Amino acid sequence: MPSIVLSLSCPDRPGIVHSVTGLLVDHGGNITESQQYGDPDTGRFFLRIEADIPGSIDELRVPVDELAATLEGTIDLTESGRPIKTIIMASTTSHCLTDLLYLQRMGRLAIDVTRVVSNHDTLRPIAEFYGVPYTHIPFSKDRRDEAEAELLQIVEETGAELIVLARYMQVLSPELCERMAGSIINIHHSFLPSFKGARPYQQAHDRGVKIIGATAHYVTQDLDEGQIIEQDVERVTHGHTAADLQAIGEDVERRVLARAVQWHAEGRVLRNGERTVVLP
Amino acid sequence: MPSIVLSLSCPDRPGIVHSVTGLLVDHGGNITESQQYGDPDTGRFFLRIEADIPGSIDELRVPVDELAATLEGTIDLTESGRPIKTIIMASTTSHCLTDLLYLQRMGRLAIDVTRVVSNHDTLRPIAEFYGVPYTHIPFSKDRRDEAEAELLQIVEETGAELIVLARYMQVLSPELCERMAGSIINIHHSFLPSFKGARPYQQAHDRGVKIIGATAHYVTQDLDEGQIIEQDVERVTHGHTAADLQAIGEDVERRVLARAVQWHAEGRVLRNGERTVVLP
Amino acid sequence: MPSIVLSLSCPDRPGIVHSVTGLLVDHGGNITESQQYGDPDTGRFFLRIEADIPGSIDELRVPVDELAATLEGTIDLTESGRPIKTIIMASTTSHCLTDLLYLQRMGRLAIDVTRVVSNHDTLRPIAEFYGVPYTHIPFSKDRRDEAEAELLQIVEETGAELIVLARYMQVLSPELCERMAGSIINIHHSFLPSFKGARPYQQAHDRGVKIIGATAHYVTQDLDEGQIIEQDVERVTHGHTAADLQAIGEDVERRVLARAVQWHAEGRVLRNGERTVVLP
Amino acid sequence: MPSIVLSLSCPDRPGIVHSVTGLLVDHGGNITESQQYGDPDTGRFFLRIEADIPGSIDELRVPVDELAATLEGTIDLTESGRPIKTIIMASTTSHCLTDLLYLQRMGRLAIDVTRVVSNHDTLRPIAEFYGVPYTHIPFSKDRRDEAEAELLQIVEETGAELIVLARYMQVLSPELCERMAGSIINIHHSFLPSFKGARPYQQAHDRGVKIIGATAHYVTQDLDEGQIIEQDVERVTHGHTAADLQAIGEDVERRVLARAVQWHAEGRVLRNGERTVVLP
Repeated sequence: MPSIVLSLSCPDRPGIVHSVTGLLVDHGGNITESQQYGDPDTGRFFLRIEADIPGSIDELRVPVDELAATLEGTIDLTESGRPIKTIIMASTTSHCLTDLLYLQRMGRLAIDVTRVVSNHDTLRPIAEFYGVPYTHIPFSKDRRDEAEAELLQIVEETGAELIVLARYMQVLSPELCERMAGSIINIHHSFLPSFKGARPYQQAHDRGVKIIGATAHYVTQDLDEGQIIEQDVERVTHGHTAADLQAIGEDVERRVLARAVQWHAEGRVLRNGERTVVLP
Repeated sequence: MPSIVLSLSCPDRPGIVHSVTGLLVDHGGNITESQQYGDPDTGRFFLRIEADIPGSIDELRVPVDELAATLEGTIDLTESGRPIKTIIMASTTSHCLTDLLYLQRMGRLAIDVTRVVSNHDTLRPIAEFYGVPYTHIPFSKDRRDEAEAELLQIVEETGAELIVLARYMQVLSPELCERMAGSIINIHHSFLPSFKGARPYQQAHDRGVKIIGATAHYVTQDLDEGQIIEQDVERVTHGHTAADLQAIGEDVERRVLARAVQWHAEGRVLRNGERTVVLP
Repeated sequence: MPSIVLSLSCPDRPGIVHSVTGLLVDHGGNITESQQYGDPDTGRFFLRIEADIPGSIDELRVPVDELAATLEGTIDLTESGRPIKTIIMASTTSHCLTDLLYLQRMGRLAIDVTRVVSNHDTLRPIAEFYGVPYTHIPFSKDRRDEAEAELLQIVEETGAELIVLARYMQVLSPELCERMAGSIINIHHSFLPSFKGARPYQQAHDRGVKIIGATAHYVTQDLDEGQIIEQDVERVTHGHTAADLQAIGEDVERRVLARAVQWHAEGRVLRNGERTVVLP
Repeated sequence: MPSIVLSLSCPDRPGIVHSVTGLLVDHGGNITESQQYGDPDTGRFFLRIEADIPGSIDELRVPVDELAATLEGTIDLTESGRPIKTIIMASTTSHCLTDLLYLQRMGRLAIDVTRVVSNHDTLRPIAEFYGVPYTHIPFSKDRRDEAEAELLQIVEETGAELIVLARYMQVLSPELCERMAGSIINIHHSFLPSFKGARPYQQAHDRGVKIIGATAHYVTQDLDEGQIIEQDVERVTHGHTAADLQAIGEDVERRVLARAVQWHAEGRVLRNGERTVVLP
């Protein structure tokens, strides 16, 4: 029996869960997992349901769209476990890219990496080892528009549903950020909002913090201000140099990013204004 | 508008959530929080719903009982935030008792500690400071039955819904364990199932573990084998003596126990065979 | 045999450890614990030694002072485990005060709390329960100098070696900060440098972070900028309100502050410019 | 100026640190890092010193051996950062092997992996990608002695100083365990001493623990009883299946093993009876 994931975001009001579960019951569905959250601050309601259904997912699409309209919200409906088409972008640092490709190969992430894009050619062998096409798009002030156009073309060609910035050190254009809002995930190598901007490990070292961290967030036009999806931390001491913090931090970065990508791919992350709702 | 908590455990089948939410919708209820879990191993389904309802909770009792019968399960229905009547038992160690009484006073725990019971008189001043009656029930082989009878009488008198063993060093009778199954919480000073039995910190030290922990669990007749509710850990080093481990461990014990008591009091902990389902 | 703690801070150069251990060997001492750190950034060297010595600590004072002069540094010499005279200041929030007094009573902290000082009278019963004198120094713009004078008099009278700001919500005067530099510890209810200033839990909630924390630091004239001694964190979710974060955070605050006070009292915390060296 | 690491284990007595630092001072050395530990239980003393020395390390070898004899202990002396010759053994599970090879390539681990040995041929492409020779030694009851002989020959040929069992599912012979005592590190996929033996994640799931972990330990002839080097944990919930625990656990396993290997390679791990001393 196929299994579906339904993710809903709408204004809160009585009866939502009953309506959604009613629709599923009418189609013979059996709910296997369900989480919800009503935000008293924003007045919005969020729901994720995983269910087994007897027929095809397509039979649900029209009634689900009608329900979304009635609830004045949005509902994403997809097959459970369907790998989403993903572009990974990286510059020269390999730990996040290596880990995502490894986890994809092991079946640990519900993503289908259709392309690795980089402004350098350094990481090509890693992509090749994992059998993923690699596109080098040189980036410089002169050819900014050209580079963006190449990237957009790859997005089109591959039908990318998600872009993961796995330590990609260039800023994406406002157009792309807007167009794929909520579908671009970045890993920031600090425990945001601490140490925004450049060289966060050096900043952390200079401030003498006892714990460092990393943050995966959606990319918005405001740098380092996008909605936080996941964070994690590791203890450090006075004895660690900025280079040590970087080495320790890389391990935090890769697991934070992997978790964020996984939860996003499973439809567990819903945007709620400046924040996210993560339904575990 | 009053708020209610409904905790359900029953055999899994399609339509449960729809039935429960339907009952609430019929009574004008608005769900503010909901979690569920279907266990593929045991075939059981668990649900906790928090909802605002327009009328009295009493109007729900009959339909809820009928629904429980239909679902061949059990449903607990209670006012949200109602402090449950609690007896704390301790011997001579004070950290867990102190913390629970402090947190109760600060309104952090939905419990109403009606009595502190101990087999010693040592901890009386702490109970008195927090305004809780203290009963010293001396315990020895000779007066085992007598001691048990005194305890049972206090359970009766106070209408205890929960007994917390906050480092109580005597074993409760099988009768009491049976009678209050799922309503007696113990804190064990190790990361179970490691280091069962006596002197767990000494055992941990001797084995040279790098992390110690504590475990809150329901009390069953099998010592240290009850369903685990919550665990937490702390890093230690070769430099820590068994006494150091104990000092570090006490801080872990008290927060693990406090969390377990809080979740239990909020109806978030459901027993599932040898395990628990904790709906956050 | 008495045991001593020797804490050294001086410019780095070859032979320091050999000189210090030589001095101890000459006096028949046996080192039981030793940690050191040389900071390549600041060129400073830090050493803490715990040793058993056959005679009186006083016989060591002159040679230790001479060695400090030779090394152009400072050496603190004290009996191991000697409780240092401490004033705790708090306003109306009780969790940190309660915990410090509890831990002192249990012999878990090497401090001797000689006075609790507050700008309110709210917390008096807690101090009295633990047998510590309580002084209420009302604080307002009008009587700022007067209040400071009263506080300074208590510092004098009690011979305070340490002031702990256990959620004290007033700013100390630059004079007091200067006079007791490195001997005033504050707990800040955020994971500094994130969320400086007022209402950090509300700030954390609004930013949607997935982990909150607390920071114990030395107090300097720059608010929230003093050297960090210890930090710790706890996971939170979208479902936690700002009030929930506060409740969760209080448990983090108290354990971070307790650790910082303990390490300070044991001579393990040495200031190194804007940072600390913590020798475990 | 070359830098050396000196790791000492000997019976505790006064003056050890002074003797060792004296030797270094005599040779113009400058200590950059030093940790020590005296175990009151076993009466043994452990010391690790990192120092810059003006001449060749070889000039230190004789005086260091003489000092070791005087102290009735053992001293390991090596160049700081020298990669130690390492064999990695694995069966069919790739996460630990992949991670160690990746970290080696990135210069994060002071090891020189001279060979990957496996009882299967599955993981060969990974070794080849990282440019490490791969030897498949089929293992079965019939050819047990033959397989052991082949392994020993590789140990000889490569001059292996360390064997890492990166999820190698066969038991090594007592002879090899004895011969390389303290130089074989295994990763066990549970938080030892919990869940010894087979299928620890299934055991953990069945017991309903709320935290799982992994343990890196030296291999001794008593299976799962060797000295623990490092452990780490991750939170899990009732909702995780045994397969989920395995996926989560793999991330814990690889970082625990990587840390243990790194600390061992840096001479930070000293055996102390049934336990280890880890000098950070």
